[in-house]
Parts: sequence; structure tokens; C-alpha cells
Amino acid sequence: MNTFGRNFRCTTFGESHGKAVGVVIDGCPPGISLMEADIQPYLDRRRPGKGPLESARQEPDRVEILSGTFEGVTTGAPIALIVRNRDQRSGDYDALRDLFRPGHADYTWQAKYGLRDHRGGGRTSGRETLARVAAGAVAVRCLAPCGIAIQGRIIEVHGATELEAIEAEIRAARDAGDSVGGIVEVTATGCPAGLGDPVFGKLDAAIAGAMMGIGAVKGVEIGEGFGAARLSGGEMNDPITAGGFTSNHAGGILGGISTGQDIVVRIAVKPTPSIQRVQKTVDIAGKEREISVAGRHDPCIAPRIVPVAECMLALVLVDSMLEQAKYRGPGER
Amino acid sequence: MNTFGRNFRCTTFGESHGKAVGVVIDGCPPGISLMEADIQPYLDRRRPGKGPLESARQEPDRVEILSGTFEGVTTGAPIALIVRNRDQRSGDYDALRDLFRPGHADYTWQAKYGLRDHRGGGRTSGRETLARVAAGAVAVRCLAPCGIAIQGRIIEVHGATELEAIEAEIRAARDAGDSVGGIVEVTATGCPAGLGDPVFGKLDAAIAGAMMGIGAVKGVEIGEGFGAARLSGGEMNDPITAGGFTSNHAGGILGGISTGQDIVVRIAVKPTPSIQRVQKTVDIAGKEREISVAGRHDPCIAPRIVPVAECMLALVLVDSMLEQAKYRGPGER
Amino acid sequence: MNTFGRNFRCTTFGESHGKAVGVVIDGCPPGISLMEADIQPYLDRRRPGKGPLESARQEPDRVEILSGTFEGVTTGAPIALIVRNRDQRSGDYDALRDLFRPGHADYTWQAKYGLRDHRGGGRTSGRETLARVAAGAVAVRCLAPCGIAIQGRIIEVHGATELEAIEAEIRAARDAGDSVGGIVEVTATGCPAGLGDPVFGKLDAAIAGAMMGIGAVKGVEIGEGFGAARLSGGEMNDPITAGGFTSNHAGGILGGISTGQDIVVRIAVKPTPSIQRVQKTVDIAGKEREISVAGRHDPCIAPRIVPVAECMLALVLVDSMLEQAKYRGPGER
Amino acid sequence: MNTFGRNFRCTTFGESHGKAVGVVIDGCPPGISLMEADIQPYLDRRRPGKGPLESARQEPDRVEILSGTFEGVTTGAPIALIVRNRDQRSGDYDALRDLFRPGHADYTWQAKYGLRDHRGGGRTSGRETLARVAAGAVAVRCLAPCGIAIQGRIIEVHGATELEAIEAEIRAARDAGDSVGGIVEVTATGCPAGLGDPVFGKLDAAIAGAMMGIGAVKGVEIGEGFGAARLSGGEMNDPITAGGFTSNHAGGILGGISTGQDIVVRIAVKPTPSIQRVQKTVDIAGKEREISVAGRHDPCIAPRIVPVAECMLALVLVDSMLEQAKYRGPGER
Repeated sequence: MNTFGRNFRCTTFGESHGKAVGVVIDGCPPGISLMEADIQPYLDRRRPGKGPLESARQEPDRVEILSGTFEGVTTGAPIALIVRNRDQRSGDYDALRDLFRPGHADYTWQAKYGLRDHRGGGRTSGRETLARVAAGAVAVRCLAPCGIAIQGRIIEVHGATELEAIEAEIRAARDAGDSVGGIVEVTATGCPAGLGDPVFGKLDAAIAGAMMGIGAVKGVEIGEGFGAARLSGGEMNDPITAGGFTSNHAGGILGGISTGQDIVVRIAVKPTPSIQRVQKTVDIAGKEREISVAGRHDPCIAPRIVPVAECMLALVLVDSMLEQAKYRGPGER
Repeated sequence: MNTFGRNFRCTTFGESHGKAVGVVIDGCPPGISLMEADIQPYLDRRRPGKGPLESARQEPDRVEILSGTFEGVTTGAPIALIVRNRDQRSGDYDALRDLFRPGHADYTWQAKYGLRDHRGGGRTSGRETLARVAAGAVAVRCLAPCGIAIQGRIIEVHGATELEAIEAEIRAARDAGDSVGGIVEVTATGCPAGLGDPVFGKLDAAIAGAMMGIGAVKGVEIGEGFGAARLSGGEMNDPITAGGFTSNHAGGILGGISTGQDIVVRIAVKPTPSIQRVQKTVDIAGKEREISVAGRHDPCIAPRIVPVAECMLALVLVDSMLEQAKYRGPGER
Repeated sequence: MNTFGRNFRCTTFGESHGKAVGVVIDGCPPGISLMEADIQPYLDRRRPGKGPLESARQEPDRVEILSGTFEGVTTGAPIALIVRNRDQRSGDYDALRDLFRPGHADYTWQAKYGLRDHRGGGRTSGRETLARVAAGAVAVRCLAPCGIAIQGRIIEVHGATELEAIEAEIRAARDAGDSVGGIVEVTATGCPAGLGDPVFGKLDAAIAGAMMGIGAVKGVEIGEGFGAARLSGGEMNDPITAGGFTSNHAGGILGGISTGQDIVVRIAVKPTPSIQRVQKTVDIAGKEREISVAGRHDPCIAPRIVPVAECMLALVLVDSMLEQAKYRGPGER
Repeated sequence: MNTFGRNFRCTTFGESHGKAVGVVIDGCPPGISLMEADIQPYLDRRRPGKGPLESARQEPDRVEILSGTFEGVTTGAPIALIVRNRDQRSGDYDALRDLFRPGHADYTWQAKYGLRDHRGGGRTSGRETLARVAAGAVAVRCLAPCGIAIQGRIIEVHGATELEAIEAEIRAARDAGDSVGGIVEVTATGCPAGLGDPVFGKLDAAIAGAMMGIGAVKGVEIGEGFGAARLSGGEMNDPITAGGFTSNHAGGILGGISTGQDIVVRIAVKPTPSIQRVQKTVDIAGKEREISVAGRHDPCIAPRIVPVAECMLALVLVDSMLEQAKYRGPGER
């Protein structure tokens, strides 16, 4: 299932060390102005190699629109976006061909498919998120005229919550050949009330699935989240007044449907599994081995997950907006 | 979207105070023995009115199989299950007809549809979960021959983690006309490696969507969950030995695919929003009002969510098992 | 796949000689007035036993709305409709338990599932169409306010095209213990231009799939249909003038999208496979046997397919209308 | 909806005069050997410009595999295939920018989307079928090891049924600046019994939808097709003996499920709508105009539809094979 969404359907493809990574967006409304320059800044934000605390892989990550626009405007036809891979040091991975990296999908992918592209994780690489970000950039353009904006930020890394302390934690992990986890918060403002469906199509269910579908994410919460387990009903319920809700413990969603307040989502990001520290593992024959993952890796993946999480939220919201449009469909109303 | 699942597709229907609640299961494999007596115990576990700390609504909740079996065995045709509603004191809700209950879907449903069935929450009632549990009971029967078992439990209520303290918290909330939240943990044992799909169809993404789709759930985590944000890679990665993984920080899922270890999920349940304590709200005309929700409500909904969460996990797993079966499909292998 | 439609999703269930036949409609817009009395006339039209040329099975076929309406109006929640089976002479089928009836799905169902409910065809019975007609009646109510109406008629039976000759053909088949095929034409008027999607979601593709999905249908054509193979482009193309198209060889659909003209569909209905004439077959053990299908069967099924085909067209159109509503969704337009 | 299939999901993209045409295949089983050289011959068969009776557009149509294979074998990851457009004489279409070509989707696309790419039909061009053929070539590779083969042929053009007469009809149409329609028959051999689903997922319903989804197709029939309307049950039913069915009036499908016999499908292809003969039309402002479509067009499109129809049948069958694999999923069997 490499397709996300019911109405604004994004199908991603491509491996870390294959020819290209890309996405086909089916269901984008016609009449939206869209150029490569609208998408590129999102890819630039996500790109590695921008600083000393990030993977040193150097990719220009230039997006090309192959279809779906005419004279700079979307036509309603599927929009294909591709980014060619360049800086593929597949040789870095030769030593890993027969080893299962702990914390990675190597073992499970082998169990599932009986074979795998070992170069940089192949399809399971974080590089796949590039395609999501490209699609999310288009989603953001669809949401902007509706007044919806999305903003993510890191709120915690390895227990630290201040910016300097966070940087220090990441630096220390890098220097130790290790990595650290963190928490990212994403907020959507300007979202109208009424988005989402009751029962299985709840807006928070869609968001939870979208966020947990990002590699390295181990937890998702909305509004008070796990903190709600320690509250009473009198504390948790958001009072309603003529001026609207007076608090937002719900995180903008009640009964699976948006309230019109800010939608607030937090996700737990595990430490990057690729570390230089020696770990125990087995090879494909089941023989015990030791492994130290060299290559080019981020000591903390949370910063680079921020734009990905923003884009996943954008995809969920644009999909819900299109779904909701159907309720203005035919009928005696 | 009242349908859950891609292969084992469950479509639920029915309102709290309508004629019946039910589910149609499409895609259940043929040849599985199935009688009403196989399903009833699951409904009995979920049923309210079993003790002083639960809603006093008395419903026999007798399930009837309308289709899909022949001589006690599933045929591959859709299985329709219905439960007639009996103890409908719709009158309890007359006073709420024009009021939006804080913490409920009343306001958002009105914003979405422009009208609503106010009686007991209508479709947004927890009574809808009865249909999920009936479907989950069928899923459990499909999983049993594969050696997969699922077990849930309450691990925290309003900060308390011991059984007596938990009961005291619930009792205190009830006596105060208030309610409390909690945390439920669900574990699946016996699950083979290889379930789930990379990218958007990850097993943990499906679980997160399924769990967050249960009313009152505000957070979902797998394995270490939010705790992973405070770990280093060396701590989080589960070492692999010839005898298998030596720890399970991942909670049984790596890269979205099951590892063969126990799948461990925790969910945050908010306090029941229906409380007797007076709250501020508005009526449908926007006029400020006060509300005290009488009716028959659980002071803590977590205990009754346990079987629902187990059933949602069963539905995700049976769906993944059927999806995975396709990889033994046609081809040069 | 017992679900039809993407937006107005109908999931049918039930066997010919089971407890009930029914449908759950998910995605019906809210605010449409709907009572059992709105649906019943459609079931009455489809019902057998109305005349000497039809099956003598007597079923009251009373529909019951179980959910999805409140005070006589749809709420947006799933609408469950059921019809209890009454006149089940399952004993009629005891002799057929181990035999494969030629022209029926007995052999193929056994090949697919490894078991089957032999009573009256079980799930493969024409009785399943009752659920489609119930759903179609709701679709018709959604289409009416948009000015769309659908009308079907028999245009040929066993070569005869006049009403008296048609009746004579059916009578002769019945008297000979045989059956005859026919052609049904269905026309939708008042349909706006712009429905349907390019490529795989073409309106005519959806119609063709819907019609071929009716048991006994062996062919579908739109507009000139197979006659188009004998025309030149100059004859086939419908000229466009300021007053609109001056002919309708296209049958109301160009490039998969409605033109605003009448949508004209014809379907080929094979002769009822259940005949008293002795036929060769085998039993479940592969032993050669002879079979004469007694029971209660229509000598020509085309008349009873007319309301079913109308309802399938209604379902396709309401689904397309809801899909099209999304193009008025978010965006810079 | 630019995606076809439930399990072997093909999403096509690209316009006639855009940068590229392509397809992403999601759900292809792993372990199938696949090189560009396996796909290219199918594109070559479909390519225009091979003879005097075809469009003179010259396109090398070289396919490139962007993802989804590793060391020449499919991995289970999505397979992206693209073909760059070369011989784009968009200028040929400048005169048509504001005109609606009769028999084309120009008018309906404008009605649907409010704008369109007029160059060569944009997304509605027959060039889109190139992506289907690329996907179909992969499907054929999946089917081959199962012993399934698919073969199409022209059986009628403008009333002629012999090869020489057919060629004469096409030549005459070309010389007259006109075009002619025809009938294509496609047969699948080696298909096992048991494919397809009852009710809405019938194999013939899927085939009908797939075939009618090819531009220019106006009718689809299976086995006897429309001829069945003129038969009696005694003639139509295929007798079953210990050696199998003794005839194949059903065309290999009974009750929507394959019988194990040849699957026989016929489709009616309308005359190419682009003709030099002067036709009446209107421009985008509604003003009456005359039009003569120059450009490079096939006087009969049926020959080039043969490989497309074969590929669509291959896609339906591989999808059904994967669906059927699920019935060997979990359960007490």
C-alpha cells in the first residue's frame, strides 16, 4: 500500500539508491497554480547535509513536474513529480548486504518478501519521505486559499526541551557514535469545523495512521493525549460559550470531527537506529555477527521529521476537505 | 466511512436509541465454524450494567447471525450480525435536544451534517462499539487457528496503577459526579513476522488508526512509545541473536512490519465526557446555558474499552494476514 | 466484494433461503426525507409472483429501516435496510444438494470456496438483487431533486420486439419447460454534463461494470454500442451546435464523461438457466447425472431485471454526482 | 480515478503532449524477473507509425524502470515506468484550442473541469493507453508462470470480416478523410476456475468495466453476449460432463466466476472521431464553427486497441489471482 488518501491520493515510489523517488497525486482539484518553484522549498527544508548535525549525504533533490499541469495550472489530471537520485554511495552498504541492522526493517522485510534491496534501506529508507514532502507541498497550496496553515517544531530531544540543551544532546550523541529520540509537535490553524467522519474515518484516526506511518514514529497523541489519562472529566471537557470553546484540551477534534480550533498533534520519534556503536545481530544465514553502521546518518532524526509530519497533516486535511465537499452534493437540502 | 479493513471489511451501522446496531463482515474466509454462541461472550464482556461502577443501562445485547453461514460454517458470503436495542430511555435525552454536551461530538456533528440524532449520542454513542466487538469476535475465531491471541488490561486510571487504587479512583469520581481517564494496554501474542506493509500501510499505522478511531482515545503508542523520545539508539535498538531478539523495545513492529515478537500497544482514554457536574455550554441557537448530564454513564470508560481495543487489534491483524496471503500469489517464485 | 460504489457505498448481504436479505448504505447525504413507504414500491415492482409468467415464489418483501434516519430524515449515518425471507421452500432444493445446475454458479462457487449453500443458489440467487433495488430506491430519492429520472424497458425477447410477440415467446418457453433471453434498455434523463472521470473511472466504465454485475447479463452497450462498429466517423460523431448536440449516437457519454444528453444503456440478458428440460451435468463427486430443475422460476428473467438495471444506473449516477461535488472543493478557483 | 485494480494497482499519468507518460504499479509480487526488455515489445506493438494505415506520429516510446526492481527482480516495492514524449507537434493543435472536436472529450472535459489541455487531447488522448500497456506487460509476466496467455484479434471492421476486406475498408476511409469502427475479440486461455467474486466483484463485471474504460469502446460482451438474447435456456446452458463443459456459450464465466474454460470477450470500437471531413461544432464561447481535424490519426483505431485490450484483460486477471490468494489465508481449513 504505497497510496495515501481517499480523494487526494498520493502514490509514492522509489528506493534510496535507485534511479529516482517520486509521487503521483490523483484527485488534485483543477485550477490551482503550481510550478516546480512552489514545491522545491519544501524539499530543501527536508534535505540532508545542511548542517553538522545532519547526514552528510548531498542531494540537490530537484523536483520535476512530469504531468498534470498546463500553462502552470493544475488540470485535474494526475500530477507526477520525480526527483532523480544523485549521491548514491551504494558501496557504503556492501558490508551490510547480508546483515540485519538492529532497529531497521531489514529483518522484517526479508521475512515478508523473501528478498530485499539492501542499499541504504531501499524502499524503507527515510528518503521515501521526500515523495511525501513533494505531495504535501501541493496539499499546502490547496489548503492555503482556505486559510489553513500548518507548523511543526521540536519540543523535546532526549529529555531536553530548550533549544540549546537540545543541540547539546544531539551533539553528544553524535560524538558518542550514538543517536537520540525526540518529540515533534505539529499544529494546524484555520481549519473549519466539520472535517472528519464519525466511526472509522475519524479525523484523529486518519492523523494517527498518517503519523505512525512515518518511519521512526512510535507514538501519536492529540490535544492532552496521554495526559488525558490523568485528568477528570471536569478538567478535560472544553467549555463552550457564545464566543466559542474556552480551552482546547481536545486538540481541535471531538468525536473524530474538527471543532474549528487549532489541531494539535504530538509524535514520539525514536533514536536513529543507524549508529556506529557496535551492536549484536545475525546475518541472513542466522549466524551471530557484530555490526557498526557507518554511512551518513543523522544523530537525531526528529528535526528532519518536522517537515514530513507537517506534510502528512496537510495531506490528511486536504483529503478531509475534499471528502466533506460531498456533503454539499445532491439531495433535498 | 463506516467500513473498516481492506480484506476483512466490517461495515457497522446503528444508533444508540435506534432499532438495532449491527455489522456486515465482507471478506471472511469460508470454512470457519461460527455460531451465535461464539460471538455472544464478547458482547457480554462489553455490556454495561454489570457492576456498580458501570452505566446502569440494561441491554441483553443478543446477537443474531442473519447471513453468511450455512450449517454452522462460514461460506465466504457477507456475514450480517445484528443486535436489537431494548432499554432505550430516549426521554432521558429530551432536555439535551438543543444543547451541545461539552466533550461530546454534538457540536461537531451539527457543524458537519447540519442535523443530528440527539438521543444518547445517536451514531456517535459508545454503543456503536458493540458492532465492532461482534466483528472482532469473528476475527478472533479466524486468528485462533494461527496461534494468535490478544489480551488487554487497564494499566492506569487517573494516575493510579494498582487495582485497588484504580477502583478507588473510579468510585471517587462517581461520587463526585465526575469521571476519570486511564490507559489500556493490549498485547497480541503468536503473531508471525512479515505482517504489515511498508510506507502507508504499516502495521503500526493501521493499529494507530484503528485505536484512535475508538471514541475517547487521545493517544496511541507502540512498544516504548513516547518513552523512546528519551532513549538513545543503543538503548532502543533490540539486539538480534541466533535465538531471536533479546528485547522488545520496538513493541513487535520494525519498519511497519511485524517482527514475530509480542505486539504491544497502549492507548490513552480520556475521562467520560458525560458528567453530572455543571458545565458551561451553548444551545443550538448559540445562547449560553448550563448543563448537567444525568442519564446512565460510566465514571471511567477505560474498563469497557478493553474488549473494544482487543477487537480492533484483532481486526487489524486478520486484515493483515489476508493481505499477506497475496504474496503467495502468482509469479515466478 | 459485496460493496458497490465509492461515495454512496452499498454493502449487500443475505442468501435466498437464509434469514434475511439486506443492504447497508454508507455515504448517503444527510437531510433527505426517507421512510419505508418510499422504498417499498420499488421492491413491489421487483417482487416475483405477480403474474402467470413469473416465478410463483410468494414473498411479501417488506422492507425495514434499521438505522440512519431520525424523524423521517437521513442523518448521514449508515442506512441499514433489511427484508426478512418468508416463503423458503428449501426442500425444493434437496435433490440439487450435490448437483451442479448448468448455467448457474454452482460449479464455479464450489471451485472458488470449496463449499456452498445450495438452497436456491444461496448468495448467488437473483434474490440478492432485492437489496440492490432497496438501495437503488434511496439513490432515486437523492437524484430526484436534481431532476434526474431513470426508466427501463424490455426491447427484445428471443428475437421478438413487439409486446404481444414478446409475451408469446415467454409463454411458449414456459410451456416447453424452457426459457428465453432478451434485451433491456435503460435511459437516464436530466443528467448534467461533467459526470464521470477520465481514464479508469469513466462513467461508461462504471455503468458497464454495474450492469455486467447483474446475474444473467452477458453484454452491455452505450449509445450506438456494437452498431458503432459498422459506422463511419462522419456518421457516429454527434455534431455540436449552439443549441447543443443534434444527435446522440454517443448515448450521452463522451470520453467517459456525461454530455448532458440522455444516457442510453442496453444489456443482453441470457435465458434463465433453471429449466425443466433434462440437461447433462455432474454431481460433486464428478459422476455424470441428469438434471431437471423444478422449483419456481421465471421463463424469462428480463422483465424482472428491468427495475434492477434501473437501480444499478441510479447507484452509479448518485455516486458520480457525489464524486463530482469534490471538484467544488478547496482551491484557488 | 487514474488507478486500476485492487491488488495489482496501476496508477497512470501523463498527457499526449506533456513531458512523459507513465505508470506506477503497486502490489506486484516480489521475485519476478523484470527488465526493460520485457516491457518494450508490448509498447512496440502499440506504437503508431508502423504502417500506412496508422497515425504517422513517430515516437520511440522507450520505457524506463525507475523503481521496484533490484538486480533484475521485482522486490514488492512499487514499480514506476516512464516513457518520455518526443514527437510533440503541439502546434498542430493551435487551431483547435478553442474548438470542441465532435466525438471527443473536449466538450465534456471542459464541462467537468472548467479548463483543459487541448494539445492532442491532453490526458484524454489515446497516448494514455501506452501506460496501460506497460503495466499490462508486467501483468503478463506475472500470469505466464500460471499458464495463462491472452490473445486479441480484429474480427470485424465496418461490416467486413475477412482480412483483405478489412484492409480495404480502412484504406477507403482514410482516402475519404473519414474513419471506420470495428470489433475486437480477446481470449484468455489457461485461466483456472474460481477467479472473480460474486455480486459486485464479478469477473465479468471487472472485465466489462476495464474494457469500457478504453477510449472509443462502446460495447462489451462475454461469450454469446448479445446473441444470448436470442437463445433458449436449453441452447445457452453449457452441459457439464465428467470431461468438463461440452460447450462455452458462457465465455468462461458463470455467476461472475471463471469456469476454467477460455474467457472470451468482444468489444465494439467506434470510428476514430478525428476526421478531415468538415463537421459542425461550436467554440468555447458557444459560437457555431466548422472543423476539420488534421493532425496524425488512425483511420481505424481497432488494430491499435488490440494490445490495449489484451493488457486490460491481463490486469483484471492478475488482480483476480491475487484476490483469490486470500482464500488460502488464515482459518480452520
